Formats: sequence, structure tokens, C-alpha cells
Amino acid sequence: MTPRPISRFPVPELADWPDDIRARILAVQEKSGFVPNVFLALAHRPDEFRAFFAYHDALMERDSGLTKAEREMIVVATSGANQCQYCVVAHGALLRIRARDPYIADQVATNYRKADITPRQRAMLDFALLVSQQAHNVAESDFIGLAEHGFTDEDIWDIGAISAFFSLSNRFANLASLRPNEEFYLMGRLPKT
Amino acid sequence: MTPRPISRFPVPELADWPDDIRARILAVQEKSGFVPNVFLALAHRPDEFRAFFAYHDALMERDSGLTKAEREMIVVATSGANQCQYCVVAHGALLRIRARDPYIADQVATNYRKADITPRQRAMLDFALLVSQQAHNVAESDFIGLAEHGFTDEDIWDIGAISAFFSLSNRFANLASLRPNEEFYLMGRLPKT
Amino acid sequence: MTPRPISRFPVPELADWPDDIRARILAVQEKSGFVPNVFLALAHRPDEFRAFFAYHDALMERDSGLTKAEREMIVVATSGANQCQYCVVAHGALLRIRARDPYIADQVATNYRKADITPRQRAMLDFALLVSQQAHNVAESDFIGLAEHGFTDEDIWDIGAISAFFSLSNRFANLASLRPNEEFYLMGRLPKT
Amino acid sequence: MTPRPISRFPVPELADWPDDIRARILAVQEKSGFVPNVFLALAHRPDEFRAFFAYHDALMERDSGLTKAEREMIVVATSGANQCQYCVVAHGALLRIRARDPYIADQVATNYRKADITPRQRAMLDFALLVSQQAHNVAESDFIGLAEHGFTDEDIWDIGAISAFFSLSNRFANLASLRPNEEFYLMGRLPKT
Amino acid sequence: MTPRPISRFPVPELADWPDDIRARILAVQEKSGFVPNVFLALAHRPDEFRAFFAYHDALMERDSGLTKAEREMIVVATSGANQCQYCVVAHGALLRIRARDPYIADQVATNYRKADITPRQRAMLDFALLVSQQAHNVAESDFIGLAEHGFTDEDIWDIGAISAFFSLSNRFANLASLRPNEEFYLMGRLPKT
Amino acid sequence: MTPRPISRFPVPELADWPDDIRARILAVQEKSGFVPNVFLALAHRPDEFRAFFAYHDALMERDSGLTKAEREMIVVATSGANQCQYCVVAHGALLRIRARDPYIADQVATNYRKADITPRQRAMLDFALLVSQQAHNVAESDFIGLAEHGFTDEDIWDIGAISAFFSLSNRFANLASLRPNEEFYLMGRLPKT
Repeated sequence: MTPRPISRFPVPELADWPDDIRARILAVQEKSGFVPNVFLALAHRPDEFRAFFAYHDALMERDSGLTKAEREMIVVATSGANQCQYCVVAHGALLRIRARDPYIADQVATNYRKADITPRQRAMLDFALLVSQQAHNVAESDFIGLAEHGFTDEDIWDIGAISAFFSLSNRFANLASLRPNEEFYLMGRLPKT
Repeated sequence: MTPRPISRFPVPELADWPDDIRARILAVQEKSGFVPNVFLALAHRPDEFRAFFAYHDALMERDSGLTKAEREMIVVATSGANQCQYCVVAHGALLRIRARDPYIADQVATNYRKADITPRQRAMLDFALLVSQQAHNVAESDFIGLAEHGFTDEDIWDIGAISAFFSLSNRFANLASLRPNEEFYLMGRLPKT
Repeated sequence: MTPRPISRFPVPELADWPDDIRARILAVQEKSGFVPNVFLALAHRPDEFRAFFAYHDALMERDSGLTKAEREMIVVATSGANQCQYCVVAHGALLRIRARDPYIADQVATNYRKADITPRQRAMLDFALLVSQQAHNVAESDFIGLAEHGFTDEDIWDIGAISAFFSLSNRFANLASLRPNEEFYLMGRLPKT
Repeated sequence: MTPRPISRFPVPELADWPDDIRARILAVQEKSGFVPNVFLALAHRPDEFRAFFAYHDALMERDSGLTKAEREMIVVATSGANQCQYCVVAHGALLRIRARDPYIADQVATNYRKADITPRQRAMLDFALLVSQQAHNVAESDFIGLAEHGFTDEDIWDIGAISAFFSLSNRFANLASLRPNEEFYLMGRLPKT
Repeated sequence: MTPRPISRFPVPELADWPDDIRARILAVQEKSGFVPNVFLALAHRPDEFRAFFAYHDALMERDSGLTKAEREMIVVATSGANQCQYCVVAHGALLRIRARDPYIADQVATNYRKADITPRQRAMLDFALLVSQQAHNVAESDFIGLAEHGFTDEDIWDIGAISAFFSLSNRFANLASLRPNEEFYLMGRLPKT
Repeated sequence: MTPRPISRFPVPELADWPDDIRARILAVQEKSGFVPNVFLALAHRPDEFRAFFAYHDALMERDSGLTKAEREMIVVATSGANQCQYCVVAHGALLRIRARDPYIADQVATNYRKADITPRQRAMLDFALLVSQQAHNVAESDFIGLAEHGFTDEDIWDIGAISAFFSLSNRFANLASLRPNEEFYLMGRLPKT
């Protein structure tokens, strides 16, 4: 089989990228050794590219009561529910690395209720899924339940906002048939040597 | 009944807004005569505020094969399906104004299949709802069907991306119990005099 | 666009209405200033017209522990869930008038969980939606929960029966593509002068 | 086990029935040999009793392009989907009798797609289920498909209206935990001798 | 109408059955007076026939904390939810016989929540349906709730395993359009004489 | 975190296994280098163990028009839809090995519609999901569509029967909170050296 293309939509040539976007992509490539396809696909629309990654960084890079591994858990669990191949594969890699656990991503993507996570993380993911799948039902009782696990209102905003942002991201990836880079599949599965 | 507050989360005082956010909010107030509550609620997180409105403008203000009224139709139809009170009320007002039609918003919010829209707009909303509710099922046949109504691939990106962005927005509004401003309810319902 | 017709089915001429139906319709017109389209559509089947309005009046006009505004809340919330454009627009108007509140109908139609209603009304609408969407799950515990909000068994019958009646009404309106009269959209939105 | 009562709500004594309701009930008893429990349960609310049976008779007794057996098929198939024990058991009996077929009711109640019915009846039940479960999706293409099976617009109204009426009836029966009479279970299962 | 065939797939001739399968089928015929169609349909694949009935017997014939009638209740309730005509009709007959109750099967198949069963049996069926319809949500709290009704862990395995086995069986029967034998419909409905 | 146990139910000691089960388990261990946990969990019930693996082998080891890789695709796609962690992880490993493709399992588990598979395999998985999620809707038109891709009736039985068998298996694994062995996660991801 010929592998599917990176995106259903046109992917611009390097020469056509605006400078700030080129700089961002080259920085990612330098750090990771490859360019995740979401960067290439979104470069087709520079303004959306800029807003998307600004939003992403505002949530995923900020100081937060959630660890970076926990934030990736939210991404992987909700992306699994939304059947988003790109996000499960790419953020599954990040989750394995951030949690230093080669098993956690596949567990969380398939059924987080059976994953090796703490009761606090279970409550976090239950709420992330509620926001992802039926946000109209979010109620004050959910805030109270999360507070019992030590989550502040700021933490709850983070959980909900990450779930909401990847609701966007999952839909874009399915719209564009965004293809996961082959590099992601093995990342974080082998012991560092 | 005491009306519910604007947001479940803290709303910062005017004095605490960063300059760029204050400038944006004051410009909106000058133009509209009031400040839509989504600006006040998001000001609690300036970086998310900036990314949210940059994304919004990239999709809703760009040159597009979709009219501004059609883009608001997408917002209202998908927000109705997601039971997002703020977005249906606020963007319902915008839809009435942009379409110069006092009836269209309530029709589209409740059941767009019975609304006074063209077959082309019906196809557009069918696809917007597909992306909103089951993006994992988007298929090449959907692109072909839309092309038969004259939609280009760029138009289809716009339909899907607006639907995806308001998937985020609807979830945020339900998370924060964002309250629609009273001004929205009557906008565009009366003939201009 | 040519507006859609009142009904997908034939609408009889005034001259063809049976006397009792003509009398009822003229009385409504005299009181309201116009004839709601549901009367015209159902006149096609006089026996069903008579039974429909007899049932409607038996529930909506009787002495009840529920106010008339509360009964309209049930209609609007369940009709929103059933995507019934006619009932949301027409009974939304009645709800605004009966509750003397220009905002309540749009709130309840989109997401009653975020509406400016009392906890008792919230419990009432939760039960109305349960009957509307999954009546097979109604259980004795629901009766107990409603009793704690002061609802008697007769009140609970009223909530459930109104929800059940509009399950019929919503389906008929969607079957016939029943068109809301333009008069409804603005009713109850402006202060009386 | 003590059998559950006829209805979750009070059932009036014979002496307390209004004359017209007593007459109707006695006529049914004379014809059938017993009083179906829906009559007893609804007698608690005489106005609703009258409207309910007027509506029922308007649909189920009228001259129609659908046979009486076909109308009972619609009732049984939609009541099965709505998990309405009373309607499946009671109208299952009527269907066996009207179709002179001891097997058809259990087939239709469980999965009408596997029942011994004609393609025309299959199309009729597909539409009845559409109206019952997702009336908001009824479209002109459904009317065209039914016309190809020879159904007139009047027939289609009948199919949809019966489905809509039993949406009400099913919800009432589940609300009241209406108990099927034991007589129904065996009716129409044995050859007449 | 010509009745549908026993199975959508070929049914082998008696002469073509392997000896062990012929022996099993003849034994059933001797005991029941007829051969249930599931035996004939599965004889098309002898290895699957052997495994299917070995599995069936391991669950349905073993010593268990559940009575045989209770096990048939699980079959009938879950098969109703899965719209499996063969299993509802065939195991409905077995349930009537094992429970010595001519009414229970139709009650349980349509809505077990309204059936004449004990609270313990209600809890058993709630869990069986959970395993049948959303096993990914099974949680430790379910085990605790069942223990309060006196169910041991072995009993809970039985409930879950029977529900799981008939998830297979229901799907096979719908795949093959397996036809219930006419003999089943009346079994257990008449008093033994 | 202490890893969860292999199974929610007791796992028997080696010494307590019946001889035939010990032989089967030791053979698997010799071949694979470890004992997949499903063998240990089912050993708690020897008769069910025997029937389960007899059924499994009858479907997965038989001569078939489906390759072994295709059969594992069916397992992985349906187990993903059923949120079965054990089956996705264990059979994902088998799929990678049988297809000699390190990427295919994660693609198929998350959204097979976006996987690198042939149109014929896509049709196969669409049907497997139909049997898995809504077998009551299987229709003759599905057989015709599959025949156009070259599938015989025997192939269609295989697709449906594998989907049905893993409907059982997925429910058992979620009931028992069956834990995937750590060995599975990396199998088939690295080039053979």
C-alpha cells in the first residue's frame, strides 16, 4: 500500500513558509529530530497555525497544578474517545516520555478506567471525558468532587481547557486525515541507554 | 432569582487587564455598546484570551468562499447540538444581523434541517455537524458531495475548522457556565428604523 | 428563498372546516391576533384536531401544582431536546409571556441546566427530560427525589404527562415540517408599554 | 412475589367513574371479557382518558390505506424500541389476532428487520421507527421512498401519527408502571376451535 | 409470505453431520421433540458448533449460586437489548418453563425494570446489562453493590460470563438471521395438564 | 503505583491446573516465552478455558479466505471500539507481527478508517464493526456489498464470527479487569535482526 499523504489538504513547501513559522518548525526539528506532521499541515494556514500553537503552549507549557505527564494523559484519553489517530499516536509518545512509563499510553488510550493511575488521576480523566463528550452536563457537583481530590479551581480550568482544546485538535486531525509520523510509534517504549 | 454570575471562574477587574487585552475589550465595547461576557471570562487567562480571539478572527474574519452569515450559521447549528447557551444566544444575534433575517437563528439552532436555507447551505451544515459530532467518520465521499454544491477544498477547510473551533468554544462556555449578555437576546429581531 | 409552506401535508380552506373547528380557530385568532399554524395543519384531520387540543387543554389548562410558566418550561426544554422547531418557537413565546421574562425561553431551550430557574424547577425539568428521552428508566427513586422538592404524585403525573404529550406533538411537527408563525419570534421579548 | 399494582398512581373505584367513562369501560369489558389496565389507570384523569381514547380511535379505527394488522405492527415495533412492556404485551395480542398469525408479534417486538413481513411493511416500519426515535431527521427523501412502495401521503401521515401517538402512550405507561393484564399474554397464540 | 429460511448460511443435511454432532442433535430432539434451529445453523461449522455448546453448557449447566431460571433471565434481558429475535423467543420459552411463570419472559424481554422480579434479581439484571452494553464501565463499586445483595464473586463471574456469552450468541443469530422454531412461541404459556 | 493484578478474580496456582490446561499453557509459554494473562485468568474455570480456546482456535487457526493478519485486524478494530485494553494490546502485538508492519495496530485500534489498509480491508472492518456494535441492523445489502469486494459467504461468516467471539472476549476482559502482559507492548515494533 502507498502510505496516505500527510494531510488531505495541500502542504506548503519550505520556501513558502512565513519566517516566524519557519523558525518555529526548524526549532521543533532541531529538538525532536523530525517535524511532527501537524506543523506541516497547519502551515497551509499561517494565522491558524499561529493561534493553534499559541493556544497549545498556553495550556501545555504553563505552570499548573497538573504535571506535564498528567496533561498528556488528558490528551490521550480524550483523543482515544474521539478516535483521533494522530493525537493518540503523537501524544501517546509524549505521555510515555513524560511519565517515564512505556505502558501507560496504550492503557489510557484504550480504557483509562483500567490504567495504572492514581485515584486522583482517575477523577481528573473522568472530568476530562465529561467535558469532551457531554460538556452540557458539567455541574457544580463535579467541581466539589474534584476539590475532594485536591484540585483547585485553576486546576479544573486546566483539565477542562485542555480537553476542550483537543476537541478542536481531534476534529481538525480527522478533517485533514492527518497522518502520524512514523517516529512517534516507538518513542518512549525502550529503556534509555 | 438572582441571575447566575458571568462565569463560574473569577472575572478580573478592569484595572488588572493587560494593556492589549484592555485595548481589545474597549474596542469591542465601543463598537457594540457592551462587552460580551466571553471577553470578561477569558481575561482571567490572558494567554488563552489572546490565542482564542486570534483563532476566532483567523476563521471568522478571513476572506472565504463562505459569507459571514453562513459562518454564523455553522456556529449556531453546531452550538445548538452541543447545548451551548452562550454561543447560541450570542452568535444567534450575529446571525440575525449578518443574514438580515430575524427568524433564521432560532430555526437553525433548533433544527437546521427545517430552516429557510438553500440546499447548498444545508449541505454545508450537514458537514459542519458531522465534524462536530462524529469527525472520525469524515470521508472522501463527503468532500465529493460538497464539491457538487460548489464548495472548494478551502471552503471545506473553513466549514470544518469553524465547526472544530466552536467545539472548543462550546466546551469552554459549558465548563465556565458562561452567561449570555442580555443585550444579545433582542439584537437583529426588530426592523432597523 | 421562498419560505417553506406551513405544513408538508394539505392545509384545508376555511370553507372546508367543520363548524366546531372553525369556531375554535376563530376564537384563537380573536385572542391572539393570528392563527398558530398547528391549528391549520391539524385541521386536515378533524378527529385528530379535536383529540389533540382536548388533550392539550386537559394538561395545560387544568388546575395544577405547576404554574402555567412551569408547564411551558417543560414544553420548551423537551422540545429543544427533540429538535422541534415549531414547539420551541411557539411555546418559547408562551413561556416568555407566562414567566414575564424575555430571556428564559432561549436559556431553557438550549440548556436548561444553565438557566435562571430554581432548584425545584431544575428537578422538574430533569424528570421531564427523563420521561422524554428514556422513560423506560423512570424509577421509584425519581418519585422520592421529586417529593423532596415538594412535588405531589399529582404534580409528577402532570410533569410526565406534559412531557409525554409533547413527545407526540414534537414528532407530529417534525413529520409535517410544521412552520412556526413569524409572530411568535418576537412575542414577550419587549417590555409592555 | 406480590405482583406489582396496575398503576403507580391511584386507580378510581367503579362508583367514582363519570358516566361516559363507565359506559366506555363496560363496553370494552363486554367485548373483550376483561378491562385492559390502561382504561383503569387513565380513569384517574377523566379529561385525559377522553382525549387519549379519542385520539387512539381517530388513528386506529379510521378508514386507512393501512390494514388494522399493519397499524398494530407499528405499535408493537415502536413500543419494543421504547421498552414499553404494557404496549408490547397488549398490542402484541391485538397484532396476533388481527394478522391471524401467532408468531408475528414476538418477531416484530424484538427485531422487525428479521420478521416475516413484506418489503412494503418493512419500509413502513423503518419509517415508523424513524419518527419514533429521531423525528428531527424525517426528510422529503423518506416520503419519496415510501411512495415507491405505494404509500400515499395520507398513508404516511397515518404511519407517522400512530408512531407519534404511541410515543406518548409508551411514556405514560412507563411513567405509571402500567401493568399488562394477564389475559393478553396468551391471546391469539392458539388456533381458534 | 414464504417464511424465511432457518439460516442465511447453508444448513447441512443430516447425512453430512459428524457423528458427535449427530448424537448431540438427536439427543436434543429426543428430549425436546424438535431440533432448535441454532443446532442446525451451527452444524455448518462443526468446530464452532462444539465450542459453542461446550461454552453454553459450562455456564448454563454448572452448579451456581444462580438458579437456572435466573440464568435464563439474564439471557432474555440482554438478548432483548440486543434485538436478538432467536434468543428472546427460544430462551423466553426456557425462562417460562424454568420459572414456572407464563408472564415473566415477555416482561423481562421488554423492560426488566418493570418485571415481577426480586430486588436481588433486579440488581443481577442491571449488572448483566452493564456487561452487555458498556462493559468498559464495569467498576469495583459494581462488585460491592452486588455483594450487598448476597452475590459472591463466583456468582458475579457467572452473571458477567453469561451476559458475555450471549453477546456472542446474539451477534451470531443476527448475522445468520437465525429463525426461531415455531415450537418455542407457546412453550410454558399453558398450565401443565 | 502498584500495578493492578492480572485479574479481578482468583488466579489458580500452577499445581492446581488440570493436566490438559497445564499442557496448553506450557506449550504457549514455550512458543512465546511468556504466558499471556488471559490463559491464567481463565484457568480459574477449566471448562470455560477449554471452550474459549477451542472457539478461538476454530476461528483464528482455520483455513480461511482471510489472512491471519486480516483476522487480527478485525480483533483490534472491534476491541478498540469496545475499549478492551487487554485485547487491543495483546492482539495489537499479533497484528504487527502477522502484518509485518509496526504501525498498523495503533492505526486500526484508534480509527481504522484512517489506517493504511486496502479498500477490501476497509469493507471487511466496516462489516466487523457493524456486527460488533449493531448486529441487529445486519442486512442482505451488507452481504452484497462484501461480495463486490470478493468476499464469499464463508468469508463473511468468518468476519462476523470473529467479531462476535471478541464481543464475548472483550466483555470478559473488562469484567475481570484483565491486565495485558508487559511483553506485548513492544512486540513487532522493532525490525528483526
